[in-house]
Amino acid sequence: VINAEKSEFNEDQAACCQISIRRKEPGLEEDEEWLILCSTQFLTGYYWALFDGHGGPDAAIIASNYLHYCIKQKLEEVVGGITEARPPMHLSGRCICDSDPQFVEEKHIHAEDLVVGALENAFQECDEVIGQEMEATRQTGGCTALAALYFQGKLYVANAGDSRAILVLEDSVVPMSCEFTPETERQRIQHLAFLFPKLLDGEFTRFEFPRRLKGDDVGQKVLYRDYFMEGWGYKTVDKADLKYPLVHGQGKQARLLGTLAVSRGLGDHQLKVIDTNIEVKPFLSCIPKVNIFDFALHDIKEDDVLIMATDGLWDVLCNKEVAHMVRSFLAENRMDPHRFSELAKCLVCRARGKKRGHQWMLDDSHEASYDDISVFVIPLHNRAEE
Amino acid sequence: VINAEKSEFNEDQAACCQISIRRKEPGLEEDEEWLILCSTQFLTGYYWALFDGHGGPDAAIIASNYLHYCIKQKLEEVVGGITEARPPMHLSGRCICDSDPQFVEEKHIHAEDLVVGALENAFQECDEVIGQEMEATRQTGGCTALAALYFQGKLYVANAGDSRAILVLEDSVVPMSCEFTPETERQRIQHLAFLFPKLLDGEFTRFEFPRRLKGDDVGQKVLYRDYFMEGWGYKTVDKADLKYPLVHGQGKQARLLGTLAVSRGLGDHQLKVIDTNIEVKPFLSCIPKVNIFDFALHDIKEDDVLIMATDGLWDVLCNKEVAHMVRSFLAENRMDPHRFSELAKCLVCRARGKKRGHQWMLDDSHEASYDDISVFVIPLHNRAEE
Repeated sequence: VINAEKSEFNEDQAACCQISIRRKEPGLEEDEEWLILCSTQFLTGYYWALFDGHGGPDAAIIASNYLHYCIKQKLEEVVGGITEARPPMHLSGRCICDSDPQFVEEKHIHAEDLVVGALENAFQECDEVIGQEMEATRQTGGCTALAALYFQGKLYVANAGDSRAILVLEDSVVPMSCEFTPETERQRIQHLAFLFPKLLDGEFTRFEFPRRLKGDDVGQKVLYRDYFMEGWGYKTVDKADLKYPLVHGQGKQARLLGTLAVSRGLGDHQLKVIDTNIEVKPFLSCIPKVNIFDFALHDIKEDDVLIMATDGLWDVLCNKEVAHMVRSFLAENRMDPHRFSELAKCLVCRARGKKRGHQWMLDDSHEASYDDISVFVIPLHNRAEE
Repeated sequence: VINAEKSEFNEDQAACCQISIRRKEPGLEEDEEWLILCSTQFLTGYYWALFDGHGGPDAAIIASNYLHYCIKQKLEEVVGGITEARPPMHLSGRCICDSDPQFVEEKHIHAEDLVVGALENAFQECDEVIGQEMEATRQTGGCTALAALYFQGKLYVANAGDSRAILVLEDSVVPMSCEFTPETERQRIQHLAFLFPKLLDGEFTRFEFPRRLKGDDVGQKVLYRDYFMEGWGYKTVDKADLKYPLVHGQGKQARLLGTLAVSRGLGDHQLKVIDTNIEVKPFLSCIPKVNIFDFALHDIKEDDVLIMATDGLWDVLCNKEVAHMVRSFLAENRMDPHRFSELAKCLVCRARGKKRGHQWMLDDSHEASYDDISVFVIPLHNRAEE
């Protein structure tokens, strides 16, 4: 984790641990706690997560200390369903209606859907906890969250924000997340402003234009998009269109309400647009998109890895460049027992670049990342199995 | 177009025409109409559309008479931008800000985005007209809409509903639409009910369960999904969960508010859930998803076709079966000048099946489609070019 002299604190945080999910014996009630403890079996999960904070590191720190606990809790709540080949309609396993198993089958509900649901609920729970904690301690800020969970032979990657996870396999690269930014979620955000115009308090326009409009544009027909449009149209500009746009800017400069560069994540409960009473939180989502990789369907090789990194890396390196570095580094260092952590350092250093005068530059003399950079390199291969 | 004895009227409607888009000379004002007419150039589009009505054929009939006019109108409104290599920031072509062309380029706005925007706006306009027209004439009902437009070397397919368009090419099948049903749009629909609970008037639950719950389920933990979940969880059932679900049923039986089998389309402005004051329209969308096929990027062969059909066909035939029938029919009938319309008839007859006693059966003794069936077979190859 490296901070390229941008801010006082490193706003990236990371977590990594084993998660033990307690499997209750069916039929035991909560008040028979001592019996449960005697006969407990555990399911084991492995967890890695990156949190990229903004407005300070506080939300990222709480999330890095708490999200795995939420995930453990939500998995324990449904563990009775996960261990079945097909989750039962009733968690108790009781069958109230003879055709219940058939209903579950018709809906194509599998154990992995319970894990996805648990991850979705865990992110929401964690967001609530962060809100309470930060209100109580008068802290502010928010963070993105990218979490990977290896559980029961499958890798689940849950993402809310603009970090990214990819699998670098022998002859393919598998994206395991997509980024949520004001640009990628423009339609969702504009739609909310259409449904609840009061959220903009008369200070912003929900329309998108190629640039901020000015007085000379009034009365002209200019390119625009509304919430329901993937295409573009022309709109006759009136004075209200001169307001600052709800979603504005391009690429890394894109902002929600002129304030935030991400549209999903945890925290930001108190965040208001500067000098206004406009709240940003209603436009944010804390819900992750979960992608699944099933190890049983792939022949995992010794150099196959999961790369997780904050936008500090991906701003300056594309998937292809990272995959190339991963493959050549691991091939050249096959004997080094620390090669995976060395590779992570190497990726971070490449994105940080080298200092020349006041600027950090990449090898090819492009500007280096000016953001915090965090990278996990996680080997997928299980030597023990061979 | 064939009705398999289901209802009194054929609820499918079709339209097909050439669309002439008037290109105004730049600099001419509306009041110089006579000058415009003297110096007019036209751009030509080719249009095909299918409308699958419900609650009567009325909305489908209006849509089939009117949607192409809305498309023509919306294209004419932006035609000045379409004929440029890159649409100008200002429709007038005036450049108010020197860097305007750069802003448009940075947003990756191309002429085809204006066509997509025009189609989106045309569907919305058409929906409004249908609403007014049907209120004035006290008609009711709605329809799906699938429209294809060939314009400036590209095929645009705009879809709102559960009809489907595919390209059958020499060695590939290209889906040109996806279906919008209460099942595929569950999260959008549930989210709206979460934001505006009053829309359900206390009569429906927004949660999804594998089956309708009953008294015996109260107090049990059963499988459920809320609006933010792609996965499943377990919820302790309370009495409110026994209400009828907002989205309920499976596959062709899936219903929105127990009433409608589609979630996008035109019309239904007056539709209420039977015996209640609950309006269905707020949960419907009239906005199409537009897919584009660029002829310049493909080597079109003589037997390559666009197949458009209402769900009556796709309920009993999958893409692969249709593609197989298309290829073998066209190969066997290469000399027949009517082979494309003959193929359309053949596809309709296959899906209708044959009457055995009271039932219509497919060749393989499965039940045939009991719905209206409409099929367009549109050759993509331009003989004149060779």
